[in-house]
Amino acid sequence: MTTTPLPRGFRAAGIAAGIKKRGGHDFALVALEEAGPAAALFTRNQLVGAHVTVCREHLAQSGGRVRALLVNSGNANCATGTAGVDDAHRLAEAIAERLECPAHEVLVMSTGVIGARLPLAKMLDAVPQLFDALSADGAQDFNRAIMTTDTTEKRATRKLGETSLVGVAKGSGMIHPDMATMLAYLFTDAALGDDAHELLSAANRKSFQRMTVDGDTSPNDTVLLWSSERAGPTALLGDALNSISGELARLIAKDGEGATRLITVRVSGAPTEDAAALVGRVIATSPLVKTAVAGRDPNWGRILSAAGRAGIPFPAERALVKVGSSVVFADGRPHPANEGAAARYLADEAEVMLSIDLAAGTATADVWTCDLTAEYVSINADYRT
Amino acid sequence: MTTTPLPRGFRAAGIAAGIKKRGGHDFALVALEEAGPAAALFTRNQLVGAHVTVCREHLAQSGGRVRALLVNSGNANCATGTAGVDDAHRLAEAIAERLECPAHEVLVMSTGVIGARLPLAKMLDAVPQLFDALSADGAQDFNRAIMTTDTTEKRATRKLGETSLVGVAKGSGMIHPDMATMLAYLFTDAALGDDAHELLSAANRKSFQRMTVDGDTSPNDTVLLWSSERAGPTALLGDALNSISGELARLIAKDGEGATRLITVRVSGAPTEDAAALVGRVIATSPLVKTAVAGRDPNWGRILSAAGRAGIPFPAERALVKVGSSVVFADGRPHPANEGAAARYLADEAEVMLSIDLAAGTATADVWTCDLTAEYVSINADYRT
Repeated sequence: MTTTPLPRGFRAAGIAAGIKKRGGHDFALVALEEAGPAAALFTRNQLVGAHVTVCREHLAQSGGRVRALLVNSGNANCATGTAGVDDAHRLAEAIAERLECPAHEVLVMSTGVIGARLPLAKMLDAVPQLFDALSADGAQDFNRAIMTTDTTEKRATRKLGETSLVGVAKGSGMIHPDMATMLAYLFTDAALGDDAHELLSAANRKSFQRMTVDGDTSPNDTVLLWSSERAGPTALLGDALNSISGELARLIAKDGEGATRLITVRVSGAPTEDAAALVGRVIATSPLVKTAVAGRDPNWGRILSAAGRAGIPFPAERALVKVGSSVVFADGRPHPANEGAAARYLADEAEVMLSIDLAAGTATADVWTCDLTAEYVSINADYRT
Repeated sequence: MTTTPLPRGFRAAGIAAGIKKRGGHDFALVALEEAGPAAALFTRNQLVGAHVTVCREHLAQSGGRVRALLVNSGNANCATGTAGVDDAHRLAEAIAERLECPAHEVLVMSTGVIGARLPLAKMLDAVPQLFDALSADGAQDFNRAIMTTDTTEKRATRKLGETSLVGVAKGSGMIHPDMATMLAYLFTDAALGDDAHELLSAANRKSFQRMTVDGDTSPNDTVLLWSSERAGPTALLGDALNSISGELARLIAKDGEGATRLITVRVSGAPTEDAAALVGRVIATSPLVKTAVAGRDPNWGRILSAAGRAGIPFPAERALVKVGSSVVFADGRPHPANEGAAARYLADEAEVMLSIDLAAGTATADVWTCDLTAEYVSINADYRT
């Protein structure tokens, strides 16, 4: 992946500061010349990393205005008690000192192993080097520095006339090391007006909330929308946010540990969109469905049965199940004549669609996941031993 | 496992009728001299096998009095439309004819592959042989004939003075072939009075509802309590039902596909018992927790984090996580000094306990599951291809 120009006003950097035991980029900074508006969504897990506490506090104090964002990988600063919160404050203060801004205009975020204190001295020492590296072309270095078990960089861009939107994300399921946090950043120069939080919530609901690798969530999951406001408002921003968030969510699902297939579960004919998304999530987290795809098996029974336990009433005998474009269940019975074509589709395509029409309404939703392979189990069973 | 004498009044049989492609016992009958009271619980899946429809109908028509139970393995008679329901009726009629009782006093149940019609002629031909084989010592043959992917027979007995309770179950996760239905039968000679349904619901809630292999449910899941009423009522029946149901549930969890460990997840300090059970179920279905146990890894982070996403508020910094008797997380931080002993415990014991105290109340619940191994994935990915 090549360099991604950041929206006007943003500069970014990513360097190796020795936080990751295996080396590589692990310390990143994004900064504006002046604070710009931001909205953030955090994990709903009861266990939260120190950065969630500190970011919530800073966003409240600053009225949602952010001057800089510091991110480290290799250590999640989670389950580290009040000492961990103090560490996060110290880092924010160090950045604020250099920028001569209030500490509450600085957000700090962490991803990596949990239960260990940050190597604070090492990180503070590396701050000058981070500032030296800041560049309008720094998106790729930033991306590299926030990766943990990711096997691919994850960036996406949308141009809206003069205005632009750049998304950078990391995550490959909450699986390794201990729990691979999802972090997603949406940088733009478009004015956000009063709608920043609403725009972000709407985009999140149809993207990151509809993506699952193994059903687990991390104590550090964070999605941030942040603008330099170098441009005016644009009516297209909402659509662009939805679209770029969806793209990043699919990149994350596709990079699930051990995954060989990106699966789109498309639910239609549901009574409501929430119901469609719920049925989609139950199918997308079913180990039986996910192992069937790993085995290139167009197993309509597992799909239909997973849908059937989501708690949404529908007439199973009128449901329609398709694998790609092949109908494998309709009119209350399987269609074995189509299973050969469906199996070949699962074998040939890297991105596959499983669809089910519930015959219980008109609402639809897509949910993204990946297949479940023996490789996933090996990685997660063998990690610490 | 040796022969299990049935409660007074019951006779059972299990034979090979050629329903299973790979051969073996696959057709079973249990009968009383006179109809006795029964209560049944069925899957809550929207997709239901034909037997669920027919059993509900017969129990309503008979006022919950049952003379005979016919079970086959090798074919679930599910997703077979109205023709499948007709097949189930035909079988019930054939048994009723022999017993000279109304067809609605006969229950029929099926487990095995879905989407294929029952081999009805073959089954009807085998009915006389089934009746010839009926015996008070037939519990083991019955048990064998209801097995699908089970690798162990699953029976348990409780004696209450002269009265007895015999439980027989099958199931090893809804995993193969297509979905391995859980069937559980509780036979007794104790009078049930008016409480049959209530007794069964209570026992089910703390046993089969608290057991999970892979989070999936089958369209054919059924639990039946049935009495010959040869004895009077006993105040101890409720406790015995709870206890025997728990034993059967653990036998099923232990026999999960590819499993090497029976895991008891014990949640304490919850605001309510339902909350404790919910947190336990989220931990017990977490692929990360289950792969960690497969890897003999006392991974407190995965346990705590799974608990944290159950939607039950608790102060994570005051939670206590134990693996066996080793405290691995307390006072807001990990206790790495105890991880060696915890890892050895996971390596040495076939039945392990993961416990978490939420520090949010006084309620507790146990949930049972098994570890998730690469073997599970291989079995389920390779099944149909």
